Amino acid sequence: MFTVFDDNHFMREAMKQAQMAFEEDEIPVGAVIVLDHHIIARAYNRTEQLKDVTAHAEIMAITAASDYLGSKYLKDCTLFVTLEPCLMCAGALKWAQIGRIVYAAGDDKQGFMRYGKEVLHPSTQLAYGVMQQESSRLLRTFFKAKRTIDKLL
Amino acid sequence: MFTVFDDNHFMREAMKQAQMAFEEDEIPVGAVIVLDHHIIARAYNRTEQLKDVTAHAEIMAITAASDYLGSKYLKDCTLFVTLEPCLMCAGALKWAQIGRIVYAAGDDKQGFMRYGKEVLHPSTQLAYGVMQQESSRLLRTFFKAKRTIDKLL
Repeated sequence: MFTVFDDNHFMREAMKQAQMAFEEDEIPVGAVIVLDHHIIARAYNRTEQLKDVTAHAEIMAITAASDYLGSKYLKDCTLFVTLEPCLMCAGALKWAQIGRIVYAAGDDKQGFMRYGKEVLHPSTQLAYGVMQQESSRLLRTFFKAKRTIDKLL
Repeated sequence: MFTVFDDNHFMREAMKQAQMAFEEDEIPVGAVIVLDHHIIARAYNRTEQLKDVTAHAEIMAITAASDYLGSKYLKDCTLFVTLEPCLMCAGALKWAQIGRIVYAAGDDKQGFMRYGKEVLHPSTQLAYGVMQQESSRLLRTFFKAKRTIDKLL
């Protein structure tokens, strides 16, 4: 039986955020934070717009979720993000003691998994690969367009 | 000859920020970002006040400096911080390609050096130990007071 509350459902919502980043000419990464089957925070990468390296989707989603809950800990929450978090974001997720992380596409270069799961809080659960192809496709389309523009300039 | 623009001078400014954190019952960590011998950003840890794990002194100083410069890169800047940055902050400093980091006290538990200097950008210079004793003393005083309060409660 189909349930709307599976990982695919929430990753689709994160993908919508990534699409919004894409449309604003940002590297297309989106995130949502979920508590008890409800989305309590949505964010997308805005590093170019804000001229701020800390404006990753995950960081802004953590800030929004903490603001919503009035707590700096997100122990019962799940983060869905379309790209493997970087070290900065993994470090933030560790401090927040997030309950679970689900990411779509891997990131061999900047992803935290180069350093292993131990950079996260020991109680954080981890899953990945959900909607990986859709996320990778959007990222590839973005970078391909960027390279084409660079060649034209 | 004494010059006001040495590392001690700017670390003293970072210590003033740490002291402000202390007075607001936050873990006392302060930071300043310097460009051409001028302080362009000052910040102190506000994670408790803001209920936000991302509100470390370094993260807020990066955001403030980027806002001031209108650039997400801080290649010609130096960050002075009273405690060794954590992985989250080191990751942010990597993205910002900060020119130089000077920290006071080391942090064996949460400091990024557990993972080595390679988590930073290859062009980032690193120095530490400046005013280490002053910073450690303030941190010890903070945690000692916290433990005393905990015992009383």
